[in-house]
Amino acid sequence: MTGLVLHNYFRSSTSVRLRAALNLKGLSFDYVAHHLRKGEQRSADFLALNPQGLVPALVLGDGAVLTQSLAIIEYLDETHPQPPLLPDNALDRARVRALAFAIACEVHPVNNLRVLGYLKSEFGADDRAAAVWFSHWVADTFGPLESMLAADPRTGRFCHGDAPGFADLCLYAQVINNRRFGVDMGPYPTIQRIFDACAAVPAFADAAPERQPDAE
Amino acid sequence: MTGLVLHNYFRSSTSVRLRAALNLKGLSFDYVAHHLRKGEQRSADFLALNPQGLVPALVLGDGAVLTQSLAIIEYLDETHPQPPLLPDNALDRARVRALAFAIACEVHPVNNLRVLGYLKSEFGADDRAAAVWFSHWVADTFGPLESMLAADPRTGRFCHGDAPGFADLCLYAQVINNRRFGVDMGPYPTIQRIFDACAAVPAFADAAPERQPDAE
Repeated sequence: MTGLVLHNYFRSSTSVRLRAALNLKGLSFDYVAHHLRKGEQRSADFLALNPQGLVPALVLGDGAVLTQSLAIIEYLDETHPQPPLLPDNALDRARVRALAFAIACEVHPVNNLRVLGYLKSEFGADDRAAAVWFSHWVADTFGPLESMLAADPRTGRFCHGDAPGFADLCLYAQVINNRRFGVDMGPYPTIQRIFDACAAVPAFADAAPERQPDAE
Repeated sequence: MTGLVLHNYFRSSTSVRLRAALNLKGLSFDYVAHHLRKGEQRSADFLALNPQGLVPALVLGDGAVLTQSLAIIEYLDETHPQPPLLPDNALDRARVRALAFAIACEVHPVNNLRVLGYLKSEFGADDRAAAVWFSHWVADTFGPLESMLAADPRTGRFCHGDAPGFADLCLYAQVINNRRFGVDMGPYPTIQRIFDACAAVPAFADAAPERQPDAE
């Protein structure tokens, strides 16, 4: 797999996930930035690539276009098995995917840029109301996620054991996002501890928004 | 795998997905209903089972609890490979997962019961405003999804080829949900056609809300 092109945005949480996954797999890629706040993901050129107008999208060497961060990460894990991002038995994989989806399906979609934008334009929410909305949905999932991680002996240095994987990618990206909205991480010591462990791994640290070429 | 117990709710879209998957795999299960509008998913007993307080949850014969519909469906597909819910090559699997996640991560989370409830309680949205919100997020994804399905030769009678799979489970459940909010399906003829194909399959039809014991 040569000539990977990653269409993404420095601050996009789903882009952070995918960059960290590519880094963990040791895959290099060309970085193409689409400035979401300027609506560049709605350009005709990008819509031809991904009709959803969402980042990230990954273009393979043969021109095939992959979309949806978690689908791309599963693809990378299937085609580049080392190091594995999912455990080797079905029950544990179900656990890791459930942890990932708890963030990817319950927290992130409700809190992304276009939902907050719509909340402001249609319901007159100001920045403060948007931050309250954001924190509400984080707490709604992070509360139970904290107890699920803390109570399960399969939790190690990372969400599952002592190597980073599928769920950690989502956790890391979400906690970075939380900072922008001033979410208090005090109630979530296990999540914070796993975040810190991720941040100490170069593959994750290099995926952080502030290290990207389009960082502001 | 004997003695499966499905904790779910007749109208929950994620429950519809999982029931259809269990039916496709020919797996029988005990049906335990949790009335979401009455908040039964927040009972102490159910929170002990799933701290997220979300349906569906699937309890295996040995007592292991699986959560998050898509994680459970991946588990079922791994442990009961026939009939397969995902294609046999990685690139096609990435396509099918991306179609599924387009619905499961972009449409459904923004439109579920607790988000609409919060919109009403915190932003004073009435039923009409909630329906506008719902339709907005359906259109935002169904527009591009329609063109992605219509333009790709891999689309067949179902989202991918001529057998139902992972993406169809999400599509079917979402279109059923759309009806409750009066979403006009006119702009989405391919999605509607695939929905009709699903509805003609007993595994899907038997998973529909109106056929469940707790249907109102």
